[in-house]
Amino acid sequence: MSKPLILISNDDGIQAAGLRALCEGMLPLGEIVVMAPEVERSAAGHAITLSDPLRVNEIDLGLDNIVAYSCSGTPADCVKLAILAVLPRPPSLVVSGINHGSNTGINVIYSGTISAAAEGTILGIPSAAFSVDCWESPDFGPAKAIAYQVAGKILERGLPKGTLLNVNIPDLPTDQLLSGNPDRRRYALTVHGKADWQDQFDRRVDPHNRVYYWLTGRRREREEPPNTDEETLKAGKISITPLHYDLTDYRYLSDLAKWELFQSE
Amino acid sequence: MSKPLILISNDDGIQAAGLRALCEGMLPLGEIVVMAPEVERSAAGHAITLSDPLRVNEIDLGLDNIVAYSCSGTPADCVKLAILAVLPRPPSLVVSGINHGSNTGINVIYSGTISAAAEGTILGIPSAAFSVDCWESPDFGPAKAIAYQVAGKILERGLPKGTLLNVNIPDLPTDQLLSGNPDRRRYALTVHGKADWQDQFDRRVDPHNRVYYWLTGRRREREEPPNTDEETLKAGKISITPLHYDLTDYRYLSDLAKWELFQSE
Repeated sequence: MSKPLILISNDDGIQAAGLRALCEGMLPLGEIVVMAPEVERSAAGHAITLSDPLRVNEIDLGLDNIVAYSCSGTPADCVKLAILAVLPRPPSLVVSGINHGSNTGINVIYSGTISAAAEGTILGIPSAAFSVDCWESPDFGPAKAIAYQVAGKILERGLPKGTLLNVNIPDLPTDQLLSGNPDRRRYALTVHGKADWQDQFDRRVDPHNRVYYWLTGRRREREEPPNTDEETLKAGKISITPLHYDLTDYRYLSDLAKWELFQSE
Repeated sequence: MSKPLILISNDDGIQAAGLRALCEGMLPLGEIVVMAPEVERSAAGHAITLSDPLRVNEIDLGLDNIVAYSCSGTPADCVKLAILAVLPRPPSLVVSGINHGSNTGINVIYSGTISAAAEGTILGIPSAAFSVDCWESPDFGPAKAIAYQVAGKILERGLPKGTLLNVNIPDLPTDQLLSGNPDRRRYALTVHGKADWQDQFDRRVDPHNRVYYWLTGRRREREEPPNTDEETLKAGKISITPLHYDLTDYRYLSDLAKWELFQSE
């Protein structure tokens, strides 16, 4: 029987250390193909490329038994192109990451890491995104062990059509992350919170006297319910959030019905 | 009393006919400032620009009483930059469009038009996206009349924090779209559906013998419940969907609790 085919992508680019860690984590689970952006594509949102052609190059990552390609497009392009044009058969699983930095709250909307997994979901493949909560130089080893276990469970149990898992891992040693004693369980099933950044633009003038702006900002300090993705991470626990892409605000539909639109025409 | 400040953006770019129509539609409602991408940014998703500076240029659209800027970034960049660095005060409303082509179902995830409105929502401003269901040369006149009425209602009644309106308008004459007779009402409050495209990649070889891929595809024919965005449009009615950005799949949280993750460690 052939091993399950696992597609790996990310938004930090084909050379990222987190991608390599995810490859190593997935290797015991199946046959691995990587398609990742040739350059960093953080905050790519769910962009896809319509008006340019996409290029693909085979890359030697120096990892045995792994075929890897770089792609000129976004993370969503990588996954779409791999599944529809490059892979020999549909994958059993799409995994994205391991992102260097968490993807919680509002960041989820901007995240290329999430968009790669979301594209897998849109194409009907069980998918998950992995991020480690460290903006400096994380040790990806613990996150790799977590990704292995979560991916193994997805292969075993599947996911509902349209739902992906967003997994955020604290920057802690493996033995602090995992424990057989349920009372010391270090993970929580969470909801997508509202954690965000206090954005600002740095206004500068270039040597030719023209104005330009750099986006900058810092994480806003705010309290959220403890069952949110960000608060769970802050408490030192792995956060696992099931995400889907039905954006309907169902609660507001009934209020909207009272608007009496277009009555005066 | 000063008139409400209305920020207008889009993803078809600063020169698009639909943007001009939206300006004309909003003009009776307030003071208008436009910040739109300098080039077309369709399918930009919710991308923002982190690693390049943003440039802004004032543009004369030839419309009285409207200040307009082009920006080198994505639709989300346009709205973020306008609100945080360019506008003299926070706007009362952000509107995006009028998009040339519908934004229903899965397209909502990729749409730059939606992402401009979503960025307004993320920054706490009531926001709406307008699209006309025509991929050729639409007459934006009817959609302009609809946008005027919907925007007027939003200014009057507000929107809950975190919720935007996604308005899709059939390519029909105004008198067919609107009617004072409630029995002939031509709009519906809808849910975000699953309408999608059958994507494929066109594999080609360039004159230097290198392979490249173009994304192509066509709308998939599928039946959905009549209360979805796409089915409503197909029935010749204006579709108004309240969207929000809590992506949690709440229904799946309880199933996920049965997974017994990390038990073997």
